[in-house]
Amino acid sequence: MTLNEQIEFLIKGTVDVIPIEELKKKLAAGRKLRVKLGCDPTAPDIHLGHSVVIRKMKAFQELGHDVIFLIGDFTAMIGDPTGRNATRPPLTREQIEANAETYKAQIFKLLDPEKTIIDFNARWLNAFKPEDFIRLTAKVTLAQMLERDDFSKRFAAGVPISVHELLYPLAQGYDSVALKADVELGGTDQKFNLLMAREIQRAYGMEPQVIMTTPLLEGLDGVEKMSKSKNNYIGITESPDEIYGKAMSISDDLMWRYYELLTDLPSAEIAQLKSEVESGARHPRDVKSELAKKIVADFHSRAEADRAEAEFIRRFREHQIPTEVEMRAVKSGGQKIKLVDLLVQNELAPSKAEARRLISQGGVKLNGERISEVTFEIDPTAIKEAQLQVGKLKFLKIIFE
Amino acid sequence: MTLNEQIEFLIKGTVDVIPIEELKKKLAAGRKLRVKLGCDPTAPDIHLGHSVVIRKMKAFQELGHDVIFLIGDFTAMIGDPTGRNATRPPLTREQIEANAETYKAQIFKLLDPEKTIIDFNARWLNAFKPEDFIRLTAKVTLAQMLERDDFSKRFAAGVPISVHELLYPLAQGYDSVALKADVELGGTDQKFNLLMAREIQRAYGMEPQVIMTTPLLEGLDGVEKMSKSKNNYIGITESPDEIYGKAMSISDDLMWRYYELLTDLPSAEIAQLKSEVESGARHPRDVKSELAKKIVADFHSRAEADRAEAEFIRRFREHQIPTEVEMRAVKSGGQKIKLVDLLVQNELAPSKAEARRLISQGGVKLNGERISEVTFEIDPTAIKEAQLQVGKLKFLKIIFE
Repeated sequence: MTLNEQIEFLIKGTVDVIPIEELKKKLAAGRKLRVKLGCDPTAPDIHLGHSVVIRKMKAFQELGHDVIFLIGDFTAMIGDPTGRNATRPPLTREQIEANAETYKAQIFKLLDPEKTIIDFNARWLNAFKPEDFIRLTAKVTLAQMLERDDFSKRFAAGVPISVHELLYPLAQGYDSVALKADVELGGTDQKFNLLMAREIQRAYGMEPQVIMTTPLLEGLDGVEKMSKSKNNYIGITESPDEIYGKAMSISDDLMWRYYELLTDLPSAEIAQLKSEVESGARHPRDVKSELAKKIVADFHSRAEADRAEAEFIRRFREHQIPTEVEMRAVKSGGQKIKLVDLLVQNELAPSKAEARRLISQGGVKLNGERISEVTFEIDPTAIKEAQLQVGKLKFLKIIFE
Repeated sequence: MTLNEQIEFLIKGTVDVIPIEELKKKLAAGRKLRVKLGCDPTAPDIHLGHSVVIRKMKAFQELGHDVIFLIGDFTAMIGDPTGRNATRPPLTREQIEANAETYKAQIFKLLDPEKTIIDFNARWLNAFKPEDFIRLTAKVTLAQMLERDDFSKRFAAGVPISVHELLYPLAQGYDSVALKADVELGGTDQKFNLLMAREIQRAYGMEPQVIMTTPLLEGLDGVEKMSKSKNNYIGITESPDEIYGKAMSISDDLMWRYYELLTDLPSAEIAQLKSEVESGARHPRDVKSELAKKIVADFHSRAEADRAEAEFIRRFREHQIPTEVEMRAVKSGGQKIKLVDLLVQNELAPSKAEARRLISQGGVKLNGERISEVTFEIDPTAIKEAQLQVGKLKFLKIIFE
């Protein structure tokens, strides 16, 4: 790749690259760059939202640079020092190591384990002497700290800011000194901290890092930020069928955003695809299937992606039941059982009220037949096997014993 | 002393006692209180201004309490971490120990060495682990810090405040935790830090200290704060004659202030003296002489005080030259010498212009005769000894060689 191609490859989909001239200069120098990403040491469960920035790390890795995942264990081992937040207990060394292993297992689906450095900031921050803290905090003024958006808003609104909260961005900035970072990546919400690290590197007589921020990925609904709590996410440990099916559920608009942030396809090729869809030359469903398969292939394989596509077509376009349906044995004791209870007991509906709603709206099939009576009961002496389908995606075969 | 007498004795001349109810409660409990005074570890040269708060420590000591002089060596060994202030280099352990010895030699003029504790805050602050710093800084909010007058003014004026400056009051507050201080004394300029220590003790689950502030003492001019740089001070290592003479130079108004802040005389007795002076029953000069002798006695002895008084009367009221005048040999080579030059060369005037002003205003005497001619020359072949007097206080005998 030429220098310009490298730049284009690296900055694709980013929000800020500050300053881009310094990135060009660093790349032009031809040496291996040290590229840092700070990670939370709490139990990781990575979804596609997180993968945006990890893919950017991968891009640097593919160009031969050193990528460093820095586990922020220093603050995690302290917990919440105010004691106000009981849900943030300090983590032990063992918990942090275990979480790091889970984290590695997940990121190595995208990255080359041989070429990826994992480090822990407690390594240097726990060795800080009191005078090191004083020196670090002397590098920055209060006014600089209050430029941080959430600090200034809280300060203006009279919401208490504990003094220790000022120390965290400084400690995080010092990490870039300790790692001699050339580039630091992060979400747009980290922009202040990444810029602060530039100031701190400069104050320690070091060439400041280039900062690159990636956007927050919209979830499957195309509106809210992707998150587990909103249940609009694709987890990277999900099965090929789940990933493919969920990816196919997104809107045509969102598809282009995912192409930009979740694939290596150059921007020019994405624009080409888009114009083909707009002119009617290609069906959006087929283009979306290509995207879905690329995402599956990232975390499984191309073969699995093809299989998932074939299965999806069989189930949804040809309205057939899946080739493999989970089976579960249910002890009935010969007694009749209400369909509502069966759905709830087997996690096909979260509550009886929801189960009744699903049935009355025609979303529940028993052995291929739609049931619309909410008081419907199954007689296990008459029906030995009940193939249940709830909505388009949930299938379960019940064997009565 | 009754409890009320103790309170009156202790709070005499203070500006703030916060909260006075807690001081009463602590005294009423009848146990030994731990009374803290923070001291600067730079080279001490104590004058009467500093002695106000030291006398307050002495009052506690006389009532049987433990007084602790805490040398703030922690920050002194760091120096100015911003590197902006070249005049604040870090002090070494040896320099701090040497300064502490000088400091002790000076305060022990007032205090009982056997009952005085000297401690150093680096003892616990240098042992701080990073998590100890985080925990300490978590105890206080930014808004609390910005209540400090100079912080809020600087912040409002856009004058930079380094983040490390926020740590110092916290570290100083922690000193009261480490010392289990019941009472902390300080100048009025320390009020914020003393109050902050109460918050920090509370946050560490300790009964907060009572804070007591003493006013800044006016210098001999009665206007400016007493300070070496203003040359309006009485140093506690000065000779009995110097102390007595300088004390006699203050105004009658200032005399009452000095009585309040620099003697143990109860307020009622001072009020009594004042009314006697106002009614003409006593001459203010005699009352001032009593004050001057009390001050001399504090740092020398009652006998020295009486001798200084007698000498003063001889010189100034009876217009005699002092019993002892410094002599100096001056090589003249038989040449005439200008009086102006002689004054400047022998530090009797700071400049030729000032020497001319002194002569023209009649402030210079040669062998008892006033010289008013600014071009006056001395012929050493005619005058072998020149007794010079400049103003009321400066005498020097020149022997021409």
